[in-house]
Amino acid sequence: MTVTGPTAAPKGLASEPERRRTGRRPGPSRTREQILAAARVSFARNGFDATSIRGVAASAKVDPALVRRFFGSKEQLLIAALSGTMRPSERLGEALAGDLGTLGERLVRYMLEVWEHPRANREVLTGMIRAAATNARGARFLRDFIGGEILKRLETKLDRPEARLRASLVGSQIVGLAFYRYVLEVEPLASATPEQLAGLLGPTLRRYLTGSITA
Amino acid sequence: MTVTGPTAAPKGLASEPERRRTGRRPGPSRTREQILAAARVSFARNGFDATSIRGVAASAKVDPALVRRFFGSKEQLLIAALSGTMRPSERLGEALAGDLGTLGERLVRYMLEVWEHPRANREVLTGMIRAAATNARGARFLRDFIGGEILKRLETKLDRPEARLRASLVGSQIVGLAFYRYVLEVEPLASATPEQLAGLLGPTLRRYLTGSITA
Repeated sequence: MTVTGPTAAPKGLASEPERRRTGRRPGPSRTREQILAAARVSFARNGFDATSIRGVAASAKVDPALVRRFFGSKEQLLIAALSGTMRPSERLGEALAGDLGTLGERLVRYMLEVWEHPRANREVLTGMIRAAATNARGARFLRDFIGGEILKRLETKLDRPEARLRASLVGSQIVGLAFYRYVLEVEPLASATPEQLAGLLGPTLRRYLTGSITA
Repeated sequence: MTVTGPTAAPKGLASEPERRRTGRRPGPSRTREQILAAARVSFARNGFDATSIRGVAASAKVDPALVRRFFGSKEQLLIAALSGTMRPSERLGEALAGDLGTLGERLVRYMLEVWEHPRANREVLTGMIRAAATNARGARFLRDFIGGEILKRLETKLDRPEARLRASLVGSQIVGLAFYRYVLEVEPLASATPEQLAGLLGPTLRRYLTGSITA
């Protein structure tokens, strides 16, 4: 990879807390967000193969080398775009806080909220999941993201035997619901309310989280 | 679409039973299988966008117009290739026969067998699912296939209130397992035995099939 243009050096960036404290130098972080916004639109609209770092850079009006410095490869850019939408450290963190007995329902609601609020997320997220599943390398990054950012947090919260197995069973049911509801749009799951879905999946997730499972 | 080459007219084909009875004219059916085999390899290896009817025809050594006459569009070719691998009328039919109380376990085993025997199916099927989920039109055909060939059969077997909802809940858990096991390869689900998976998902599917669900 040849760096051809002028770039903002990432090591020169103010960290998030520092920026918030001083209120100065908002530039690099806003640039990062502009790149991610352009990437979301491109992945969702064009798919993985037809998205290029060069094209994303052009949409965000920055140099392609800057996109590479910030994010690395196209796959890593996709995962950063996904992570910014799903915000596991904040929004999943909120869902994880509280009683284990109703955690399953909260996880269903978390997934639905990520997907459905604001409305625009829905197409973008579906498109990005499609894009990530398009090839084996994309799938590997998606697995690392789901494993490291989602399942790991759930596993830590569970803190009991077979925690990893329990977390991955929960994940399999929730991702299957997302696939049926958003990618395939299979009825009646596509138009069921969040309330109904939490009720339908609740007992399943409760057993996976805390019940007796034979493995 | 312009038909440019010589084609074998589908109306001239002997039907499957007729061919079996007479033992003559094996040509058209073998040609159809050759096209499907070439399509599977291309969808799995190159994805949906980079697969073309022309390319599949070249691999199968037939005229592109013949592929279009047999299968219609590229999306329909993909669904025909998927259907030939999953064989819902035969293999799912076998799983559906018998006791409702253990149907969930049989459905898990059906899905695993489709995916894992013979070994080669695994990459091809994963690639085809990826290909079908790559764009909205592919997803629509996949939904019609799953709705018409899989869920409809399950719904008929269930013959009870909310049968469609029950069938789609079952489908969501099974497709989620397939996504975690084959597309993402998340552990421990990726290397669990069929026996273990049937035990883990059994109670979930039993409730979806015959238990109390609130909707």
